[in-house]
Order: sequence, then structure tokens, then C-alpha cells
Amino acid sequence: MSTRDIEISEVGPRDGLQSIDSIMSTADKKAWIKAQAEAGTPEIEVGSFVPAKLLPQLADTAELVEYATGIPDLNVAVLVPNLFGAKRAIETGAHKITLPFSLSETHSMKNVRRTHAQVIDEISNIVAAISESENRDNTVFEVGLSTAFGCTLEGAIDEDFVVAMAAKAIELGADEVGLSDTTGYANPTQVTRLTKAIHHEIGADKMTGIHLHNTRGQGLANVMAALEVGLTTLDSSLGGIGGCPFAPGASGNIVTEDLVFLLEAMGLKTGIDMDKLLAVREQVQKTLPEEELYGFVAAAGLPKDFEAASA
Amino acid sequence: MSTRDIEISEVGPRDGLQSIDSIMSTADKKAWIKAQAEAGTPEIEVGSFVPAKLLPQLADTAELVEYATGIPDLNVAVLVPNLFGAKRAIETGAHKITLPFSLSETHSMKNVRRTHAQVIDEISNIVAAISESENRDNTVFEVGLSTAFGCTLEGAIDEDFVVAMAAKAIELGADEVGLSDTTGYANPTQVTRLTKAIHHEIGADKMTGIHLHNTRGQGLANVMAALEVGLTTLDSSLGGIGGCPFAPGASGNIVTEDLVFLLEAMGLKTGIDMDKLLAVREQVQKTLPEEELYGFVAAAGLPKDFEAASA
Repeated sequence: MSTRDIEISEVGPRDGLQSIDSIMSTADKKAWIKAQAEAGTPEIEVGSFVPAKLLPQLADTAELVEYATGIPDLNVAVLVPNLFGAKRAIETGAHKITLPFSLSETHSMKNVRRTHAQVIDEISNIVAAISESENRDNTVFEVGLSTAFGCTLEGAIDEDFVVAMAAKAIELGADEVGLSDTTGYANPTQVTRLTKAIHHEIGADKMTGIHLHNTRGQGLANVMAALEVGLTTLDSSLGGIGGCPFAPGASGNIVTEDLVFLLEAMGLKTGIDMDKLLAVREQVQKTLPEEELYGFVAAAGLPKDFEAASA
Repeated sequence: MSTRDIEISEVGPRDGLQSIDSIMSTADKKAWIKAQAEAGTPEIEVGSFVPAKLLPQLADTAELVEYATGIPDLNVAVLVPNLFGAKRAIETGAHKITLPFSLSETHSMKNVRRTHAQVIDEISNIVAAISESENRDNTVFEVGLSTAFGCTLEGAIDEDFVVAMAAKAIELGADEVGLSDTTGYANPTQVTRLTKAIHHEIGADKMTGIHLHNTRGQGLANVMAALEVGLTTLDSSLGGIGGCPFAPGASGNIVTEDLVFLLEAMGLKTGIDMDKLLAVREQVQKTLPEEELYGFVAAAGLPKDFEAASA
């Protein structure tokens, strides 16, 4: 792990599969997770503990967590909308539990049906549940600061409020917070400014990750700002599938293949083998024949001499 | 002009139209150039003085230069493959004349059918032709360093050679050189390193521009490096059409709409009105019904409150 400069957190099995119509079989999901772990991906968000009636695509999350935690050296992450989901995550042994905290209260009501006050309560409840569990030393609790860069419903989000809520989450006992550009509104100047402000308030070690979207084609430009300001965990989705189904017009995670290519070409080590990653893409495409996968590197191919240059 | 932080050089009418099957009528090209100039674009590459039998799409370049030079405050650029083309550019009154100098000799032979020695001779010949013309004080001669970041045919290009040829072009009397990622091989680290090396050799004022491609989705990440290292003229193509027809697999200029959105969102002034630019895109799409336009901002729309944020 220490040989990596940047940790890629693959969110396709959760953020990707929750946003598309196709339902992938549990066996195909396991094969995807296994193959992508073997390609060198250090962390995979394998699902979300939401009610199956809301997101039937993710109904097998418990089984996937149990499966994925058996893969050596893989950090297994899950999303939870509330305490109930967090308890299931703890029971199944997930390594990282992320609760989305949407800074747009309108979006929060649509996404997890909770006011800000209710989400803040739930942070405390989850901190308590983890501290009472046997897995407490192996469980990281992250609060994901959703719509931090603006909201399709509310528009601009006050940055001082984002910083204050980041501090609140840490004060209540969350291990870390992460910035999330749920709506694809972020620009590099804002990534830099908001990250610095949060780091100043809570310390850089309490926020190492960012979840960027490519909705307006700005994903990798924002990654450049994130790298410059010292963030080291980057979320992305194989084939760019996903986005948030409850934020109108917001689609398109950063494409893992294009992101890994960027980082490796720059000489930053991700631990991921580019050829193996492209093979995982082909494998996933076969299991999702109705879905369009995004990204440029897979279509254009690797540059001549690319391996030699990055070796 | 002085209120701009970054100069966008629109290459769609040349680089875009030379790469697609459709032939746009001269009237439609004029309407495009006029509309994009009125949207605030400071420079447009309107065509290329190549033999009509090679690129019939650009056979009306002389008429377009004469038309475009009548538009107030518009810098009119053209590409020329040789002295013959340069003389036509001078006669028609183009403000900026760019000669591509491919650092890959294999690509140079395919693209302009000339060895490096022959291109170097042609640089001297064009410098002489301009200095003898009445338009010499109003004509900028740029040597475009093509395949500077690598070649699909030759692979890696020696960076010391790129720097040496940049110096050679300036020594022979070119006004400036520009870096060109013809093949979409560039990464941000390389953009920074190569730009610094060239600036160190010839001075930053002799290279202010870069022509980046989005072949592997890295275009705007590379723009971030270009901005950081002080480059101020960025080439892009409306709808991302274009690329080089003689470099296999290399397609996709940076999308002007997505680039302007990036810069304006970051607070950098381009002088371009985003809404007017998106209207130009619709106008051009109507004249190219068979062609796919690329880009994310046009599809996703501007963020809520975007105008207020950038005003």
C-alpha cells in the first residue's frame, strides 16, 4: 500500500449500478469486484445499505461485503443512508462506511428523506453504534459532504456552511469527511479553495478524499486541483457509469480508466495495471450489454511506448 | 483585448472541417465565423492553404480570410503547409500564419511530404517572403511544433530535440512557436516540463500558445498544467470536431464550449459569452446534420446560478 501515491476508490458497483436500469447479477458483481481488485484497485465501494424496494439493484450488498472482505488487501467501502444501514454495514464487516450529508437540505430530503438536523443526529448515532461494536478498530466512518460545490435544486451552496458542517461531523466523532461534487458543478478554483478551508478547520488528515463528477467534462481538470492541494483518495467509476439519480441532469462519474491513465502518465503510482483495468472494462461491458460505458482511453488505446514511459 | 486573461483560438473551421466528410458551404462558414467572433472569440483559424485536391473542404480559404479580416477585433489565422501556401496567406492579409513542423519526421512526410531539413528551409523561405511583403508589420509567423508529445507512428519524441527545433525556428526568424499535441499523448507533467524547457531556451514571450487534443480525455487536465506554467493562448474546436487525419487514432480537439466553461468558472476572463457560444454550436450543428458534435456542457447545461458566479 505504501508504494501508492494515489488511492483510487472504485465506486462503480455502488454509484454506477444504482443509476442504471440493468440489474447485474450477484455473481457478475463478485466477478467484477474480484477482477478489479486483482488489477490493483485498493478500495471498492461495493454497495449501499438502502431498502431493496428503493434500489433493487443493490439488494445484495450484504453478500457482496462478506465476499469482498475475503479478498486480500482490498478496502471494502459501503454507503449507508442512516443508522439502520450503518448497523448492517458494521455487522457485515465493511471497512469503510460513508454517510452522505447533503449540504443542500432540499437534496438531502430527496436523497435520504432527512433534514440537516436529522442527519447530524444520525452521525452521532452511527459513531455510537461503531464504538459499541467489535469491529470498531477496523471500521472507518466517513461523512460525505454531498452537493458541496452547488446543487441543481438550490444553486450555490454557502462555502462557510460546508466548512462548518465538515467541522461538525468531525466534532461528533466521524473519522473523516470527503468532498463530493454530486452535481458536476465544481471548478478547480473552488476545489482548491474549499479543500484549503476545510483542511484549515479540521486538519488535512481528516479529509484526504474527493468524489468528482464529469457531468460538464471538468472531472480531470478538477483532479489536477485536488492533486495540487494534497488530496490522495480519488473516487471514480469504471466506464464512468453512475451519478446521482435524485439530482436532475447530474450524471457521469469520472471514468476510472481515464483517471488512472492520467495519474500513471504523470508518474504518480496508483498500483493499478492499465491493461488489466481495460480488461475489467470489457468484462463489465459484457454483463451490461444494454448500457453505454464512457471514457476516452479505452476507445483511443494506450499511446505507443506508454508502458515503457510509466515503468 | 486587454481585459482577457486567456485567448481562445478557435480552430474548428480549419482543424474541424478538414477532418470530417461533410463539406460546409462558404456561406455557412462565414456565418459560423461571424457568429463566433460576435460571441467574443478573439482568434479564429479560418482555413488552410493546401491544394484543393487534397482537402476540398478548405478550398475556399482565400475567400474566408478576406471575409474574416473585415470583422472588427478578430485575429484571423491560417495554416500553411509550405512557402506557396504562405504566399497566398500573405496576399490575402491573414494576421497569423502557422506552419506545422512535425517533430516526427515520419509524420512530417505523411502530413506535408517534407523531411525535417526541407521544413527548416521552408521556415527561412517564409520568413523572407513575409519580410518582403507590405503586410509584414501585421503578420505573425508561428511555427507549430506538431507531435511534440509523441507520435502514433514513431512513439516517444526526444524532448531535447523538440526544444532544439523550437530554438531553430526562432533563430531563423519565426515570431513564435506553439506546442501541439497532435496525437493526444500529452500528460500534464510533460506539458509543464516541455513548456519550461522551451521557455528557458527561447523566452516565454516566444511561446504563449498550445494546441491540445482530447483523444484520451486528458485535454482539460493538460490545460490546467498549461495555465499553471503561464501559457495564455489555447486552441480548441467548437463541438470538439477535428484532429489530424494523417495520424491514425488521433481524433478530438478540446471542445471550445467545455474549455470556456472551465476558464470562466475559474474566474479567468476569455471575453466569450457562454450563452452566445452555445447558440453558435446549435447553428453549426444545423449546417452539419451528419456530424456528431462532442462536449459535455452543451448536454448538461450551465449550472444554476452560473452567470451570477462568473459575473
